Amino acid sequence: MSELHRERTKRLRAAMKEAGIDVYLIPTADFHNSEYAAEYFHTREFFSGFTGSAGTLVVTQEEAGLWTDGRYFIQAAKELEGSGILLMRMGEPGVPEIREYLAETIHEGQVLGFDGRCVPCSEGMALSKLMRGKGASLRTDRDLAEGIWIDRPALPSHPVEILEDDYSGEDIEEKLTRLREAFHAEGAAAYIDSKLDSIMWLLNMRGADVTCNPVALCHILVDDRNVYLFIQEQEVTNELRAYAALHRITILPYDDLEAFLGIYDYRGDVLYDPGCISYSIYHNASKGIAGKAGGYTLTAGSSPLEKFKSVKNETEMNNLRECYKRDSAALCRFIQWVTGEMKKPEGERKRITESDAAFYLDNLRAGLPDYRDLSFSTISAYGPNAAMMHYEAVPGVSDAELKPEGMLLVDSGGQYLTGTTDVTRTIALGPVTEEMKKHYTLTAVSNLQLMGAVFIEGCTGANLDILAREPMWKEGLDYKCGTGHGIGYYLGVHESPPSIRWKVFPGRQDAPMEPGMIVSDEPGVYLEGKYGIRIETILEVVEHTVNEWGRFLSFEPLTLVPFDRNLIEPAYLTPETKALLNEYHERVRIELAPLLNAEEALWLEEQTKPLS
Amino acid sequence: MSELHRERTKRLRAAMKEAGIDVYLIPTADFHNSEYAAEYFHTREFFSGFTGSAGTLVVTQEEAGLWTDGRYFIQAAKELEGSGILLMRMGEPGVPEIREYLAETIHEGQVLGFDGRCVPCSEGMALSKLMRGKGASLRTDRDLAEGIWIDRPALPSHPVEILEDDYSGEDIEEKLTRLREAFHAEGAAAYIDSKLDSIMWLLNMRGADVTCNPVALCHILVDDRNVYLFIQEQEVTNELRAYAALHRITILPYDDLEAFLGIYDYRGDVLYDPGCISYSIYHNASKGIAGKAGGYTLTAGSSPLEKFKSVKNETEMNNLRECYKRDSAALCRFIQWVTGEMKKPEGERKRITESDAAFYLDNLRAGLPDYRDLSFSTISAYGPNAAMMHYEAVPGVSDAELKPEGMLLVDSGGQYLTGTTDVTRTIALGPVTEEMKKHYTLTAVSNLQLMGAVFIEGCTGANLDILAREPMWKEGLDYKCGTGHGIGYYLGVHESPPSIRWKVFPGRQDAPMEPGMIVSDEPGVYLEGKYGIRIETILEVVEHTVNEWGRFLSFEPLTLVPFDRNLIEPAYLTPETKALLNEYHERVRIELAPLLNAEEALWLEEQTKPLS
Repeated sequence: MSELHRERTKRLRAAMKEAGIDVYLIPTADFHNSEYAAEYFHTREFFSGFTGSAGTLVVTQEEAGLWTDGRYFIQAAKELEGSGILLMRMGEPGVPEIREYLAETIHEGQVLGFDGRCVPCSEGMALSKLMRGKGASLRTDRDLAEGIWIDRPALPSHPVEILEDDYSGEDIEEKLTRLREAFHAEGAAAYIDSKLDSIMWLLNMRGADVTCNPVALCHILVDDRNVYLFIQEQEVTNELRAYAALHRITILPYDDLEAFLGIYDYRGDVLYDPGCISYSIYHNASKGIAGKAGGYTLTAGSSPLEKFKSVKNETEMNNLRECYKRDSAALCRFIQWVTGEMKKPEGERKRITESDAAFYLDNLRAGLPDYRDLSFSTISAYGPNAAMMHYEAVPGVSDAELKPEGMLLVDSGGQYLTGTTDVTRTIALGPVTEEMKKHYTLTAVSNLQLMGAVFIEGCTGANLDILAREPMWKEGLDYKCGTGHGIGYYLGVHESPPSIRWKVFPGRQDAPMEPGMIVSDEPGVYLEGKYGIRIETILEVVEHTVNEWGRFLSFEPLTLVPFDRNLIEPAYLTPETKALLNEYHERVRIELAPLLNAEEALWLEEQTKPLS
Repeated sequence: MSELHRERTKRLRAAMKEAGIDVYLIPTADFHNSEYAAEYFHTREFFSGFTGSAGTLVVTQEEAGLWTDGRYFIQAAKELEGSGILLMRMGEPGVPEIREYLAETIHEGQVLGFDGRCVPCSEGMALSKLMRGKGASLRTDRDLAEGIWIDRPALPSHPVEILEDDYSGEDIEEKLTRLREAFHAEGAAAYIDSKLDSIMWLLNMRGADVTCNPVALCHILVDDRNVYLFIQEQEVTNELRAYAALHRITILPYDDLEAFLGIYDYRGDVLYDPGCISYSIYHNASKGIAGKAGGYTLTAGSSPLEKFKSVKNETEMNNLRECYKRDSAALCRFIQWVTGEMKKPEGERKRITESDAAFYLDNLRAGLPDYRDLSFSTISAYGPNAAMMHYEAVPGVSDAELKPEGMLLVDSGGQYLTGTTDVTRTIALGPVTEEMKKHYTLTAVSNLQLMGAVFIEGCTGANLDILAREPMWKEGLDYKCGTGHGIGYYLGVHESPPSIRWKVFPGRQDAPMEPGMIVSDEPGVYLEGKYGIRIETILEVVEHTVNEWGRFLSFEPLTLVPFDRNLIEPAYLTPETKALLNEYHERVRIELAPLLNAEEALWLEEQTKPLS
């Protein structure tokens, strides 16, 4: 592929020259700052060949660099080989941040270009300031992939569905009331948002425009009288039309938002979150305002919807608990099957590859009630492949055969009407080394220490992260990613603002943990060329105690899948973590047994016996 | 006292009326945002009667409130009784923050007053913004204590001393070079600072203007050519004059800074840290700039000196290690004495009060080499008095007699040419309850878990705090203060920026831990009316491992004083914490034995025997 990508970069450079752009930046993003974007938006992948879910390509006439984070170092190095594009390992010593690189590279009078619709307002403003400081300028009205990417997929447009109250747990009118109260409290009279999962949550609506993400491409503007929904005509069903009429939602064409902002005649501040609208929207709205007397003004703040959607209501929580039980049972069924197959003698054993295993599991999930989709492409990674955090087996390209030895890492999840799941277990397929057992047990201890945390109200993930990392750090190990992320309700599998990571990004206020939030707990050990271990359990934040010292919170596990006892080396368990593991296993046994057949239940019994 | 304070508040209200001030705010501060201020500045104490080291008094014509933090809730409630001043317990549910209270209380057209010299620039700017938003205004040029506080002590002025290189470890010229590089890196051409410990550190100078704090009242302005030092004439010795001449330091009168800023003719930005100069300086400099064409401008940033002084150099660290050993030996001597006295039968036992015990210990310290002063008034608190975190025994007022039962908490430290010490131990004087043992052991576990931490470079105290708190939180307990603070070198006993606390204050960037920083580790249990427990050990940040995963740091204890085995209940120790305690005790025994006499060494041997 590398020759093809060299040719594409060459054409990009020609287009840059024509457009008067000296440095061109291609982020991994759609018009909505989504984590996962429809194929139409895979411009960075088109030019670089790097398929990971996060990365930014920066191209000049002389050089090209791809910035990505620790999850993708191994994969990106492989995929970029021979492309002439330099891998910039973010966070490693000596690797400049993108802005540092731009500051060094761009000279007075030069032009930095990017598609302003694909860059969040906050980032665009920072780049604009950086350029001003250098006497350079921005050009943000050109998507240079146009004309080069001939067979580019169309912008997706699928009919939307309305989520019933039994699933959403809160009526759209109540949600709108809360939103209006929130923007009034910020002194604003209206609110604009392009973040897809926030809009879906607010309108109790789901779409199908992004694989594994039940969202529809759209924007909203909410004021005291109206909700304006900007959405593609093809997505509007009769159901949505009726629903819109009932709730005073005005449906307008998807592309019309920027033009609408030019004629929107409203007195007061329009609140926006610089992370939730694109630089292009901000830039055009600002130009519109500057050209007129009166009308609205813009005011930056935090999206109230980000916070709202992260705290699940009772209906959502009840649905989620049942959903996770069924989803966990499917994974148990899978583990029992794959370990069972591996126990068979050489001749009787079927040939099973990584993708076969993923396919088997995906089919089990698809048979569950309320199933709609996977929540991401199942990661089924055997042996050294598991060292790549986001490896994807592709038949014919990279698809290792499972053998009755070593470890298989499976990270998977589903989208159900009753919630979004995400779970990782690492499974011994046969004999394992002492080092594997040590690292698996350390990962288990990390996972359990966080799961067993008790913490005072107000704590953020930055306060909690060390509970998971300390066992690793004491052994001189680390995993180069966060420990946990928030998860949507039948929405994105990664949902901000909750997160568990020690690093605090300047200007980014982490959300304190609150009952009703759900977060992942996924420490791991990744040894390039050897193996990868991750144990991911989804946790619900609950109230633990309220007394004269304050309100204490703790976690309850939603994921109920046993740890692999063949990989546990008791010498590395502390008495506390052993007790936590036994407690967790007992809970798994009690909750899941009713969902399994006799043979599976027997397997579960065996897996969850107390360790002594 | 309460009648007296009612009368003082009455006079304050009259003065407010005369000055056209509706709400008057009295912080606990000098002109330098110092934590401890000379008596001249004890205005808040004068009006309220509250003697704690932190608190803000807000007075209107109708009401008066004193805001203070958890360390002082018990003490303040006692001292404010009958004064008519409401105690505002900061951080408690339902208690408004000061700014919230002001926002609610002050109406359009009203005036908020405070002495602008006693309020840091950052705080004054926030209050100014708050008032503008309400259509109210500020008056900051009046100190209303003048005329009411008749017998106010004079502004202190003591001769300064120059610290030799054997103690400072870095020449003033090297420090000035580092400072100039740092402000150039921020795009500035000069630097202004009023923070006393920062100035002392930079100039290798020490003063005696504040009890227990070897600082001299002064301000500095440093540009590429000159250092301007604003200091009282009485403080300038011949030694300082010669030193100043040698290092191009221009000595100017203490009060002249604001006038100087009006005539200072310099091209370029003057860097200031909004936490390190007063609102008054900022306000007057800004007015000066506005009234002129050309000249300098002001630019806000972080004080480079704050960071510099927190990372101790090799000379400082070597001195500190020796200093802490000797200081620890003195405390061991004290513990052996007081516990020995308590073992004597009723008749033979001397009467020892809290203040007697403190006096005994203070005298032991005063006999140590390089001793200059205490680093704060020794806290010697017996029984329920120890529940007040900053209790001070005063003969004739509150000075409990020690009895051979329960616990004595002693928090103390010294100022030496070789460093500043701070240490707390809680000591059983005889039989103790099971609950005391449980709480002491939990405190020990908290202390040891933090001491034993291994963490990756970049972590701040907010990441580490939970290691100390988790054992408490799991038992539904908490201590309402930070876990740790930085400490100066023969400077302030509390030194920012390092701190260990879970709460992150918006806009305040915590400093990542770095080798050479020293921090306290002081968890505790405080039960009002019953007892208080605190174990405080000072830790040095050191490099632990560097490998492919990164650079890992850990702590080494500087304080070497045994924990009290009579208060340890092994059931609450984990195997890890027991191992950590035995390791610590072994280290104490090895390091301190050479500094003790035979009898003391025998006692130490007994105290530091491994727990099985």
